Amino acid sequence: MDRVLGIDIGGTSIKVGLFSTEGSLDAVTKIPTGEIVSEAAFAVVTNGLKALLAENGGTPEDVIAIGLDVPGPVDDDGKVGMLANIELDPEGLQAAIKREFPRANLAFVNDANAAALGELWQGTAKGATSFVLIAIGTGVGGGVVANGKLVSGAFGAGGEIGHITVNRDETEACGCGRKGCLEQYASAKGIVNGYKAACKRLGTQPVALDGPTDTLSIFNALRNGDEAAQFAISQMCDYLGYAMAQISAVTDPQVYLIGGGVGGGFNQYAEELRLAFRKYCLAPCASARILPASLGNDAAMYGCAFQALSER
Amino acid sequence: MDRVLGIDIGGTSIKVGLFSTEGSLDAVTKIPTGEIVSEAAFAVVTNGLKALLAENGGTPEDVIAIGLDVPGPVDDDGKVGMLANIELDPEGLQAAIKREFPRANLAFVNDANAAALGELWQGTAKGATSFVLIAIGTGVGGGVVANGKLVSGAFGAGGEIGHITVNRDETEACGCGRKGCLEQYASAKGIVNGYKAACKRLGTQPVALDGPTDTLSIFNALRNGDEAAQFAISQMCDYLGYAMAQISAVTDPQVYLIGGGVGGGFNQYAEELRLAFRKYCLAPCASARILPASLGNDAAMYGCAFQALSER
Repeated sequence: MDRVLGIDIGGTSIKVGLFSTEGSLDAVTKIPTGEIVSEAAFAVVTNGLKALLAENGGTPEDVIAIGLDVPGPVDDDGKVGMLANIELDPEGLQAAIKREFPRANLAFVNDANAAALGELWQGTAKGATSFVLIAIGTGVGGGVVANGKLVSGAFGAGGEIGHITVNRDETEACGCGRKGCLEQYASAKGIVNGYKAACKRLGTQPVALDGPTDTLSIFNALRNGDEAAQFAISQMCDYLGYAMAQISAVTDPQVYLIGGGVGGGFNQYAEELRLAFRKYCLAPCASARILPASLGNDAAMYGCAFQALSER
Repeated sequence: MDRVLGIDIGGTSIKVGLFSTEGSLDAVTKIPTGEIVSEAAFAVVTNGLKALLAENGGTPEDVIAIGLDVPGPVDDDGKVGMLANIELDPEGLQAAIKREFPRANLAFVNDANAAALGELWQGTAKGATSFVLIAIGTGVGGGVVANGKLVSGAFGAGGEIGHITVNRDETEACGCGRKGCLEQYASAKGIVNGYKAACKRLGTQPVALDGPTDTLSIFNALRNGDEAAQFAISQMCDYLGYAMAQISAVTDPQVYLIGGGVGGGFNQYAEELRLAFRKYCLAPCASARILPASLGNDAAMYGCAFQALSER
């Protein structure tokens, strides 16, 4: 039986999904890893993959496609760019996997792009030909699908919508070095910053926050009528709706999917976001639907598996 | 011999190109038309097409694809939306052509999108898999190509880059009803407005202008060291470079092509535009090339022919 693997590469472990070629997720395992830069580390990965197969009645020869998502740029040719937050030798890992899984097509995919592909394969976007996934987490990532295909970009920056400029008057710099990026207001960090600033301005006491990305507490405060929380979420919706209006003037997607950690609070801000988008977009684009993503943290694992399978 | 027709539909006439399937333009004709909304008007068009074929040793049976570009939105399914500036019944014309050219696949394409496809088929973008054509004329149109395919958009607004917001502080409305669109500054009209405003501010006498879109005179003035002309062109480059930086964060194209009437002055502002783009774009996208389009006014005719041929 032909099988597909989707490998979500994180900083301290990788999560592996074993899929059928039709996209059902048959098993998941986590393999603890450190830096993935030596033959020993590559062997930990390939042994983990083989163990997962053995436990599920499979062999390496069954595997026809293996996708790997990485937290960094991957260009249209599948080449991995600079990885800032993770120690990984992509060529080395690829060669090691290729040796142990000789039938498999291998593909690297950027993590937010992979999440978009996952939603396309088995999530909310199933069957859609044009949509944009916006993953709101520590940062704001994105994946653009047009004509049913992922737009990775010539330099791996396709779907970098967290870096659409939404405020030309901003004086503080974004992580990318530019100023006024969407990510500065609509990421978990941006929402927390917006909340703190609003508390200061209003002279109110902020609720206790568990670190610089704790939007859960802010959404709870919002539910309790906290004015500063309302300000922070409204600011997020306004800038996000504005950025989406710019995206619509470029690829004009049918659907926007909101995912990532902050995507979980979607129902609390969906209407406000829809209103903001319609306020800013070109008239014909106002029919674009804005929906929550459905695969949660598994989306990228699905998506990189799908990419490797599609490329065969 | 299989043949392809590309039909550029204008307000008072249509221009028709007779192509080989390899993309060589073998003959061109103009057919004077008025409103194209009656059987009589459809017959003028189909008779003109048949005459062009007869003059070039062909018959309607030779024609395997016919593309038509229109100055208005066409969605991903090839459906023509509201046409503001032209009297055309697309379904009626399509049916009439279909009757006379039974073998031909018919396709409607938005004119700026068609120009992008033309450049992809036989122009500067030949062989490129990702690029954006920016057509600077009376307005600012665009065509986005990703993964080698045109992105028409779910609501026909793909490549509407003239309506990327570049100035949130603008108080005057764009033709689309929104405020601060790229088109308000970077179109021929926008450049002329910028020039006049600069003359007023500087207290200088504007050069004689032949109407509200005469950028030729402004480019001549620029050559003669006119300070207000320099301001208008610099403003155009700054806003255009800024808008391109936003596009790069969405589809991250390899190449930008500048076409349209104002595209002819490209050499006079190419360096300034490149600097503006690099100032605003994400670091990896700075390698995108900015080049002049090469097919001039024929680009859309090429492109719609190509689209009809590709869809077969």
